[in-house]
Formats: sequence, structure tokens, C-alpha cells
Amino acid sequence: MKKANLFYAQSGGVTSVINASACGVIETARKNKGKIEKVYAGLNGIVGALKEELIDTNKETTKVIASLRTTPAGAFGSCRYKLKSYSENKTEYERLVNVFRAHNIRYFLYNGGGDSQDTANKVSHYSLEQGFPVTCIGIPKTVDNDLPITDNCPGFGSVAKYVAVSIKEAGLDVASMCESSTKIFVMEVMGRHAGWIAGAAGLASEKEGDAPHIILFPEISFNHEKFLRKVKSCVNKFGYCAVVVSEGVQNRDGSFLTDTGGTDAFGHAQLGGVAPYIANMIKDKLGYKFHWAVSDYLQRSARHIASKTDVEQAYCVGKTAVEFALAGKNAVMPIIVRGKGKKYSWKIGEAKLADVANVERMMPRDYITPDGFHITEKAKKYFAPLIEGEDYPIYKNGIPQYARLKKVLEKKKLKNWKPS
Amino acid sequence: MKKANLFYAQSGGVTSVINASACGVIETARKNKGKIEKVYAGLNGIVGALKEELIDTNKETTKVIASLRTTPAGAFGSCRYKLKSYSENKTEYERLVNVFRAHNIRYFLYNGGGDSQDTANKVSHYSLEQGFPVTCIGIPKTVDNDLPITDNCPGFGSVAKYVAVSIKEAGLDVASMCESSTKIFVMEVMGRHAGWIAGAAGLASEKEGDAPHIILFPEISFNHEKFLRKVKSCVNKFGYCAVVVSEGVQNRDGSFLTDTGGTDAFGHAQLGGVAPYIANMIKDKLGYKFHWAVSDYLQRSARHIASKTDVEQAYCVGKTAVEFALAGKNAVMPIIVRGKGKKYSWKIGEAKLADVANVERMMPRDYITPDGFHITEKAKKYFAPLIEGEDYPIYKNGIPQYARLKKVLEKKKLKNWKPS
Repeated sequence: MKKANLFYAQSGGVTSVINASACGVIETARKNKGKIEKVYAGLNGIVGALKEELIDTNKETTKVIASLRTTPAGAFGSCRYKLKSYSENKTEYERLVNVFRAHNIRYFLYNGGGDSQDTANKVSHYSLEQGFPVTCIGIPKTVDNDLPITDNCPGFGSVAKYVAVSIKEAGLDVASMCESSTKIFVMEVMGRHAGWIAGAAGLASEKEGDAPHIILFPEISFNHEKFLRKVKSCVNKFGYCAVVVSEGVQNRDGSFLTDTGGTDAFGHAQLGGVAPYIANMIKDKLGYKFHWAVSDYLQRSARHIASKTDVEQAYCVGKTAVEFALAGKNAVMPIIVRGKGKKYSWKIGEAKLADVANVERMMPRDYITPDGFHITEKAKKYFAPLIEGEDYPIYKNGIPQYARLKKVLEKKKLKNWKPS
Repeated sequence: MKKANLFYAQSGGVTSVINASACGVIETARKNKGKIEKVYAGLNGIVGALKEELIDTNKETTKVIASLRTTPAGAFGSCRYKLKSYSENKTEYERLVNVFRAHNIRYFLYNGGGDSQDTANKVSHYSLEQGFPVTCIGIPKTVDNDLPITDNCPGFGSVAKYVAVSIKEAGLDVASMCESSTKIFVMEVMGRHAGWIAGAAGLASEKEGDAPHIILFPEISFNHEKFLRKVKSCVNKFGYCAVVVSEGVQNRDGSFLTDTGGTDAFGHAQLGGVAPYIANMIKDKLGYKFHWAVSDYLQRSARHIASKTDVEQAYCVGKTAVEFALAGKNAVMPIIVRGKGKKYSWKIGEAKLADVANVERMMPRDYITPDGFHITEKAKKYFAPLIEGEDYPIYKNGIPQYARLKKVLEKKKLKNWKPS
């Protein structure tokens, strides 16, 4: 087979280990120089392909590529850009294939969530129709852990570890102060639709009385009275109450809790997140002094406290994606398959992009306790191995040293792209 | 000298290394069993002495005491309780001395900020007057870094490291996404009166263009127009803008920024913190998509990313406090003295409690750039060594293992205390 180039793009919200997947891709491609000439990375994801802004990763040193393994966020840039459907906008697919053709790109590896796998699947079909078949392989990534078929998603284990460690530490802080000061701590975590991240925070609760005492899931309709009763009983029993709340927690009518919030100085419908909302509600009804935190991007970029398991899996799906491509597979995605044994083990499996695309996996109801406020033992068994192990970055002067890429762009061969 | 007991109490807001000081106290006392019989720790700080709730630390194993070194927050409980002045409430001082007398406590080590050192100083004088002289030694602690005389305060280096690492990581996240999505990230940090913590976040900015691009200090009056111009110029130059804002940032009239904020669903004057306020203001005036984070207690309890320098200094001031006490010193506090050499070094010095009490040290103006939006090289030189080195806790199943104390209380000998 003639040598061809590979195009790799990062898509959607980034994670602390998506660059570990990139590292797996590039290092594996470099080991197969007989087949893959260059790995191009899209500058800011798929937009980089549309704009013909292709980062020539051959210009990056071995050392810098290796350091991607310990670098959070999207080193090549990511984007929130979903290709329209064929019928709506065929020109985007045409453009992609034209760019691929111009740069002899025969492999397209797309590192993202369900939307992205849908796109990769479509590009695979469309390129075939156009007589320039491009092998399209998905690489799973999402902090939300909501992809189907795979046991878990790279990116999730590290955010899970971050939230569990954070609520453990903040819980100890509140426990110290609760006799005479703060009795309530509310930490808001990501997860608009599914409570995977909020649930993982429950791992911090190793013994009875440990924080978090209450977890609020998007899957469970929020019940003010029941919640306040639970808060009060925690304070009575443990002296304080640590709450983890998913940003997606909803009222019984399906609206987000914060939709009922106040306005800020500029008249915006919503100033704070759901954490201050919940904390103020407790203060208002029960009078307890509170603190709250919203970790937002900190949680998904916290490479300094990444899960070793997560890093290894992220690297491995990147590596395997290249191997799949070279083995002639197409429109598939490497997935994580959990071993059946008592001791946690995992191996790589394979899923069709068509089966992964646009399907959201929710947390099973039996992962949540009957009262709706915590996780079950079954959930803990699922979550625990995903946060196992530490994998620290290298520090200099007290600061982690993250990859700094040159990002040299390949010379353009086509006319500028005008989005329609 | 006859053997006597030592009373140790944690005071005020806790830190991720105050237990390292406790570890230093208890381990050093145990090495001096000929002079110190028992170390009592106040359950919930000084309140534990008033209530005669004295934790007998002899009941804790060597291993558990050693693990205090890597445990955040106040393992014995802390409190926000300031003794009134003599003239206002002599009975509290009487009670303290009575409890000390009843339990043969001749040493009082108080681990806290300026207020606490004021209390320790007064107890020293009062006990002498009462004919039961108690040796009072302060142990510095505060995330705010606002104690005078000492070069820095144990507790600060670790929160400094947390905020620098966090804004570095979140900055990379925003940099990845800014082409098509979030362009603004605002992170709120502690520091009501002084900008030490906000300033330390500036260490993340190792090269031009690195986050944070803007730091808002309590020391610099907030100027809306100037700030928005700066934000816009950062977005134009770097594609995004990462802002660190101190919770204490003020309007020109000295009011807190958030005092002008909106009301929440319950009619409270303030729902969110200053981060959402700033973020919304940018959105309103410049239209950029934003994210914001409020790390709150997470920052001061983040033992998982503690500064090694900070841990060592925290341990050392605890150890030295015992040595000072045994050497017959009184009403003093061990402090950190920075060496004059080019390479950072430190040793322990000594300050009188009277000189430390109730004095707040502000950040020098020449630590802030002339435009008021960042830190100077001089500041970086001061901050950098304080976050140097990592000192990781031990993990089990992916979760850091923090000390779990038995907290066995000594039998009471006095009548119950009734606060007047």
C-alpha cells in the first residue's frame, strides 16, 4: 500500500487526558512510518480540516509528543462544531473530502463524544461515495461518561477522581469548622444530563459520616422538602452536611433548578450556578452558615490529579485507533471492555460508529440509593477502579510542565473555505 | 522541673498543612517525655479548653500522628471564637486558667492567625497574674499570608500552589476551546483584604500569553472601563482571557464589587460570588461566552497538591514551638526567615506575640504591575519558592488516605462551663 497521511482531530469539551490519546495516536503512527507518512492534527478540531489548517505533527519533537501524555486540555485546539446533516449541508462533507484528497489523507481519527462519532461515520460513507475512501476511526472521549457500549469513557476517570478527592478534602475542612461556623458545603459538578460525575464523588464516602452526605443527580427529580429534611438530619447526626450537586439537577417538571433563580445586576436570568442556589435555599429554610464551590473547568482540566487508569486507557484507545486503521477496519471505535473477574481488568474491544453515534448512556437507577441521595455499592464497584492510581506530571518551580507545541501548519493547497 | 502537660489548639479557618504543624508539635513532645507528659488538643480549638473537652493525643498511635503530616483541615476541630478582652469578659480567661490548672497544663500552643496570637499573648500575662504561669507559644497559620514579621505563613504556600496549578490547567482548557466557544474564564480565589493568594496565581504565567492574563486584587480599586479594555485586548491578542479575581476586590468607594449584585430567588442581596459577577459583566459588555469557577474551600483543603516547602515549614514551626516552650521562652512565635542568598533558603526565627497580634500585612504595591492587572518579577521571586516541591499523600483505591483520629477526651474535673 502506498504511504498516506493521517488526520487527527479533537472534538468538543476537552478533558485532562485527551492529549494522552493524541500521544497514543502520534507515537503509534511514528512507529508505522512505512504506512503513515504524516499525522496532521486539525487546528481547533474539525474546523482545522475545513479551513485547511493542518498542524504538521512531524515538526514536533519526540519529547514534546511524549509530554502530551501528561498535558491536559486539547493541545491542538478543539471546537464545538457539529457538521450539519448531508441533506442540510453537503458542501461541508465535500470540503472535508477535498482537503483530505489534496493532502493524501486516507485516515481520519476523530477524538470525541457521540456527536463526533456520528460525523466520523458519515465521513466514512461519504468519502467512499466520492471515490476517495477515507478510513474513519473514532476515539472515545468525554468527561460525561455517556457513550454507549464502552464500559467507560476516557476523560471520565480523571474528573471522577478530581471530584472525589475534592469533596473528601473540603468535607474535612467543614468538619473542622462546623462546631462554631460553616455547617453546609455545596459543591457543583458537571453533568447536564447524566449523574456519572456527581455519582463518582460518592467514592469519597469511605465510612459512614464521610463527605459527601448528599448527592443530587439529574436523574432524580429535586424534592425541596425531602432534601431539606435530609440536610437537617445530616447536620444533627454528623455536625455538618456536604452536598455534591450535578449542574443538571431538575425540578419535577424537567426544568433546571436554576431556571427559577434570580437576576443579577444586569438583569440576567441566572447569575450563579446551582451550588449557590442550593446553599442559599438551605440558609433560608434552615439557617445554617454555608460555603459553596463551583469547580467548572478546573474539574475537567485537573491533570495534576488524573487517574492512572484513565491515562492508560486514553493512551491505549489512541494507539489502538491507529492499529485499527492500519488493519483495514473502518467506521469503528476502540472501546474499553471490563474483565469479568473479581479483580478489575480491562481490554480493548470494538464498536461500530453507527451504534455509538448520538446515543446517550444514562446512569442505571440501581447505582443510586432508593432515597435518591447517594450511590449504591454496585455503583462504587463500577466507579472505584476508574479512579485508581496516580500519574503525576513533571513539575518545575512548583508548576506542572505541560507540552508547548510549535503547531506548524502545512502549506495550503486549496482555496479558502467559505462556510455556507 | 516537674512534668507538665501541653495544650495545643487549632484556630480559625483551617489550611491543608495546619495538621502538619500539629504533627510537629506532638512528635516533638513525644520525644521529650521527660518534660511533657501529655499533649492535649482542644476539641474544636480553644472552645475545647473552655468546655474542658481535651483530646488525649497519647491515645493516638504513632502512625496516625505521623499521618497528620499529610492530612488537610483541622484534625482536632477548629473554631471561629475570639476571646473577648479582659475588661469585657475576664471569666473566659479565668476559666482557661482553671482548666489548665486542673489538668496541669503549663504549656499552651496556639496555632492560628493574628487574632489567636493576641489571645495567646493575653493568656500568658493573665496566667502569670493568677499565679499559675502558662508558657504560651504561637504557631503561625493562615492561608491569607497576612501575618507580619514572618516571611510567609504556613498554609499560604499550598493554597498558592493550588491556585497557580488550577488556573494553568483551566487556562489550557479555555485556550483549546476559544476558537469556537468559551473565550473568558474567571476564577475566584480567597483573600478578603489582601491579594496574596490572587497574586500567587500569577506564577502560572510562565511565558507571555499564559493564563492568567488578568489578576484583580483587593488592593487595586476596580475600574470597569479599564478592565473591559484589558479583557478585549487579551482576547484579540491571545484568543481568550483568563481572569483570577480575589473575593475582596472593591469598588472605588471601598465597597465589595458583589455588594452591587442582584438578588436571588429568596431575595438575598447576593447569590453568587464575584466570579459570576465579573463573568456576566464581560458577557454583557463584550458579548464573549464565559465560564467561571469558585474554588472556595477546595483551595485551602487541597492537600493533594500541597507545596512541599509549605509542608516542611508547617511541620517545623510546630516542632520549634515545643522547643521554644521547653527552652523557657514565652509569648513568642516561631517565624519563617528567608535567607539572603540567590538560592532560596529559610530558617526559623522568633517574634514576640505582642508584635504579631492583630497586625495585617498587605501586599506591597511593587508586587503589582503598574497597570494593576498582574504581578511583577519581584513578586514572582517572592512567591515562587513557596510553592516549590510536591508532597503527595498516600492513596488507597484512588482516594487519599487521611488521618482518622480516635479523639478520646480526658475525663473532666471541673463543673460544666457556662458562657456568660
